Amino acid sequence: MVTNTIEVYDIVVVGAGPVGLLLATCLARFGFRTKVVDKRHTPTLTGRADGIQPRSLDILRNLGLKRAIMAHEPAKVYEVAFWDPMREGEGIHRTSISRACPPFVEARYPFATCLHQGLIEGVFIADLRKNGVEVERPLAIVNFSNDRNDEPHPVEVILEHTESGEQQTVKTKYLFSGEGAKSFIRERLGIQIHHKDRVMNVWGVMDGVVETDFPDIKMKCTIHSQQGSIMIIPRENNLVRLYIQLATSSDEDFDPHRQATVVEVQNAAKQILKPYHIEWERIEWYSTYPIDQGIAERYTLDNRVFMGGDCCHTHSPKAGQGMNTAFHDALNLAWKLHLVESGFANESVLDTYESERKMIAEELLDFDARYAALFSRRLPPISKRASEKADIADGHETNASEEFLNAFKESQEFTSGYGIAYHGNVFNWSLLHPAQSLVFDPSGHKLTAGRVMPHTDVTRVADANVVKLEHEIPLNGSFRLFVFAGKPDYSKQALTDFASNLQKQQSFLAVYPHQDARSVSYHERHNPHSPFFSICIIFTAPRSQIVIESLPPLLSRYREHVYTDDVMCPAMQDTGPRAHFKMGFSEDRGGVIVVRPDGHVSCVVGLVEGSGTVDALNQYFNAFSTKRLGGVQSRL
Amino acid sequence: MVTNTIEVYDIVVVGAGPVGLLLATCLARFGFRTKVVDKRHTPTLTGRADGIQPRSLDILRNLGLKRAIMAHEPAKVYEVAFWDPMREGEGIHRTSISRACPPFVEARYPFATCLHQGLIEGVFIADLRKNGVEVERPLAIVNFSNDRNDEPHPVEVILEHTESGEQQTVKTKYLFSGEGAKSFIRERLGIQIHHKDRVMNVWGVMDGVVETDFPDIKMKCTIHSQQGSIMIIPRENNLVRLYIQLATSSDEDFDPHRQATVVEVQNAAKQILKPYHIEWERIEWYSTYPIDQGIAERYTLDNRVFMGGDCCHTHSPKAGQGMNTAFHDALNLAWKLHLVESGFANESVLDTYESERKMIAEELLDFDARYAALFSRRLPPISKRASEKADIADGHETNASEEFLNAFKESQEFTSGYGIAYHGNVFNWSLLHPAQSLVFDPSGHKLTAGRVMPHTDVTRVADANVVKLEHEIPLNGSFRLFVFAGKPDYSKQALTDFASNLQKQQSFLAVYPHQDARSVSYHERHNPHSPFFSICIIFTAPRSQIVIESLPPLLSRYREHVYTDDVMCPAMQDTGPRAHFKMGFSEDRGGVIVVRPDGHVSCVVGLVEGSGTVDALNQYFNAFSTKRLGGVQSRL
Repeated sequence: MVTNTIEVYDIVVVGAGPVGLLLATCLARFGFRTKVVDKRHTPTLTGRADGIQPRSLDILRNLGLKRAIMAHEPAKVYEVAFWDPMREGEGIHRTSISRACPPFVEARYPFATCLHQGLIEGVFIADLRKNGVEVERPLAIVNFSNDRNDEPHPVEVILEHTESGEQQTVKTKYLFSGEGAKSFIRERLGIQIHHKDRVMNVWGVMDGVVETDFPDIKMKCTIHSQQGSIMIIPRENNLVRLYIQLATSSDEDFDPHRQATVVEVQNAAKQILKPYHIEWERIEWYSTYPIDQGIAERYTLDNRVFMGGDCCHTHSPKAGQGMNTAFHDALNLAWKLHLVESGFANESVLDTYESERKMIAEELLDFDARYAALFSRRLPPISKRASEKADIADGHETNASEEFLNAFKESQEFTSGYGIAYHGNVFNWSLLHPAQSLVFDPSGHKLTAGRVMPHTDVTRVADANVVKLEHEIPLNGSFRLFVFAGKPDYSKQALTDFASNLQKQQSFLAVYPHQDARSVSYHERHNPHSPFFSICIIFTAPRSQIVIESLPPLLSRYREHVYTDDVMCPAMQDTGPRAHFKMGFSEDRGGVIVVRPDGHVSCVVGLVEGSGTVDALNQYFNAFSTKRLGGVQSRL
Repeated sequence: MVTNTIEVYDIVVVGAGPVGLLLATCLARFGFRTKVVDKRHTPTLTGRADGIQPRSLDILRNLGLKRAIMAHEPAKVYEVAFWDPMREGEGIHRTSISRACPPFVEARYPFATCLHQGLIEGVFIADLRKNGVEVERPLAIVNFSNDRNDEPHPVEVILEHTESGEQQTVKTKYLFSGEGAKSFIRERLGIQIHHKDRVMNVWGVMDGVVETDFPDIKMKCTIHSQQGSIMIIPRENNLVRLYIQLATSSDEDFDPHRQATVVEVQNAAKQILKPYHIEWERIEWYSTYPIDQGIAERYTLDNRVFMGGDCCHTHSPKAGQGMNTAFHDALNLAWKLHLVESGFANESVLDTYESERKMIAEELLDFDARYAALFSRRLPPISKRASEKADIADGHETNASEEFLNAFKESQEFTSGYGIAYHGNVFNWSLLHPAQSLVFDPSGHKLTAGRVMPHTDVTRVADANVVKLEHEIPLNGSFRLFVFAGKPDYSKQALTDFASNLQKQQSFLAVYPHQDARSVSYHERHNPHSPFFSICIIFTAPRSQIVIESLPPLLSRYREHVYTDDVMCPAMQDTGPRAHFKMGFSEDRGGVIVVRPDGHVSCVVGLVEGSGTVDALNQYFNAFSTKRLGGVQSRL
């Protein structure tokens, strides 16, 4: 049954898992008319993903959702313990401990957060509700088409109530599949899964509450024994998750549908953990499932119907990457759709969704293949490991299955989410970018376009609050201009020139103003001039010497985004202002960082006297803006 | 109309303001059958208190309520600005800035948190609801009596619905007045208010959203001008509170009922702030009220009917102490009632509620009288201040009305809440305490019984989480034993002896066990043995060398309360384990701190081999326990 008046949407999201929910949450905030459907009757009740990696927690913070996540008292993983067979005799012993997020990883929150997926979904569902969006259940997609003619809503979607069979047809600008590995949309589009490696694994996973004398039961552990391998993941509310690899397609008798009963898996765990004891108080969830490593050949065919999350990439669950990669997929797409739909960016920028995210999926699968193979490989007999160094000594970084440990460490930046480095493209400045000026890439700076801007603490001038600079602009779809302005005396002329060039008719800020400037509140902190740009200004002077009112009026309007770089780390006392130092800017003259709405660096330019800085930024934004920016531009 | 079956309660709380709500929240958690009534129809909608001082935030954190407070995005006050008349000519200028909570104050959260009282009340009301308690409104107390015979519920209370006039009679063990300055219960008991000082003040207070070019509008400011004085308090959601003193009884034409219209106060503010401009977008609340400084002569007459909060002490609102003092009153009473009602402590301990809290109220009023007088005093003419040093220089601690500034600073520890130092009594060990042994007060320690235990960060051994030690035991009514155990090799025998003496039949831990030990969950973290005691053990060894299972079984049962003192502050790298150092304990041999359920230090004892440590603690608890503890005790 098709209703007479067809509802229209900006986006229809199929699948209310992590990727669909984060996408919908962003787009609903950006003003998209959003419909979210899921064929399940309820949010995830048990099982599935549970690991929030450090960078994902950062994203949730930037979305204002971290507090709601933490209210569930998740387990936090600061360290990972490695257990191996005793060198002589029976049993296992701890051979190494490694930080979950070592200091060389530039993480605001240096730990993984483990919480049941259903609770995480609940945080998004509550936020969607605030924006008037309810997940509609149980509703499955049964057909869709993009007729390419019917602008502005060329995609027709037919949905069916899984119980009543009642159908509804809606029209939408965009359709998104967050359906997971078994995707109706992907299959219908005929997009193939490319298998990275023909090795397939069968896993058992068990969530439960246990009693045990195994000392690291509250830690993330990787345990190899002569009887097999287990990974332990601590969770909220005394839960613990055990991953047990049941079979690998390289095994002689491999069966991809191999099952194991709860008792069989429990017995396997008991054998592996000996001489320690383990008993289950209760089991919350148990499942076995085959995993192969696959990646979708395309993430979209037409920039109208998109896919993300498990729909595009499947791999082993061991490195806790599934939900996190889904978050990054969703975020990457969200702000690009926003920029296109709000008339700022050309539609072609949507191409970068696939190019950026597919590259990361390839990296993930490369890592995963290596890691999973190492994990499941039985250790060689004791005699062959005679050269290994002894025992745990101070408990850090001794030998054991060194290759496994090294793979783990090499991958830590990547798995934390901070290793994501998008390549040069229209958003990530490089020497191939259309915008070229000597003002780009000022000497000394330490940033890389395409990577996340490092975190820093600064003091807000208006209220003396110590704040996390990278979170001062919420995830609202705007580009963020961090103007490191060094010493007010030195940068005075450069700031004056910066402001006066921003005020020129053809500047990126002036060409995309609010549609009704008079409706902008006096209290608008982030976007007083344009919905697409926020500006932060960071000085190195003492707070009491910074007079916001003496800045050029355009800049003083960002009065709650003026900071001083005076939060000292005692260990770095000699290095001067920390934020300037961390970015590699002169503490006298500073520099400007443009950051994408997702927190990744767009480009870095010098803060120079004259029009050079704004000229360069006009060129940068002109590479993808719908309107022409800047005038006749001088090549510095 | 009196109903036939009379409801009985453990406590009836009259008044659902901060003091009543915090008391009820604690007692409901401790299992008290709790009734809360308020004659107002709704929680506070506008106005009233808004300042949460650092120690109060700590208490809220310990109650697990800080996250809910912070979810309202309160303003945070890190610094306070002082403004004075220009030395020459018209207008005002900033003469000094001071930290709201300077480093010498031992604060976990070194800022004040400003949030509308109604939102704070809402956090407690939601928590009470989780424990099945709804605030009943609009219900006023009209009579009560303590017949002293009708055990266990000797207090009869008659309540009346303020609209229908319907009355209900209930019986209760305890009655509490959190009614505020106008207390029916206090009047009926005939308890007098003792006036510290006959100076009475009339204040205007205005909450609103403003537009202004005054640069410190987001700061807490004290502004003196030739036209009068104002205090500015920033608030959540762009609100700002202005306090304007309208009259003082030392004025010649004093009128305690002096009123001023909104426009009059706005005009006064405009005059005082010149040369800056201020306009109001909207006004949320406005009030004028007379304040005198008074203190109730008694807080209870019979240890059955108690009073706290504004009912017991009134003063000026300027130092932001009202709600905070109320919190401390409530917390102080809550755990003592719990210990008495659960059969652990003698009823006489309730005497310490009045003795501890009235002393603090006296200190508060002394401070307040001095502070308010200084604040309202007009500055002398310019010529008389010629000796004052010039201008703001580096913006810190220059002159201005120096006496006022000095009073502010001297009081900062007190107003933060960390200066509260209860005197020696049955709970706060001193040389006059019944328990005397050489093991008390080990040499070198830096703690003071009656003051809050300093905050420290340590690493939890079980899961490698970095945690706030002082918050590891939630506010659950238990005494907290922090066993600083130094190096495992050094303290091994002392710990063994500590455990074996705790296991003896007459130890404080053994005499007050759980009523049904078998019902205690394997996962009980805090109170595996006794509902009245939690134990934390802190070593100085590397985490990987601490084997929880090798501790004496009684102690290893506190497996999630074993820590290592390895969280280094770079600035203190030479001083060894920070927590041990901060407490003044040897990093080899440690020492034991007993902390009251409210976070104040009870006593400090050495961690010695033999029975000395437990003997001393048995003596300490024996001073107020209902059962005899310890046997024949050796005087070391």
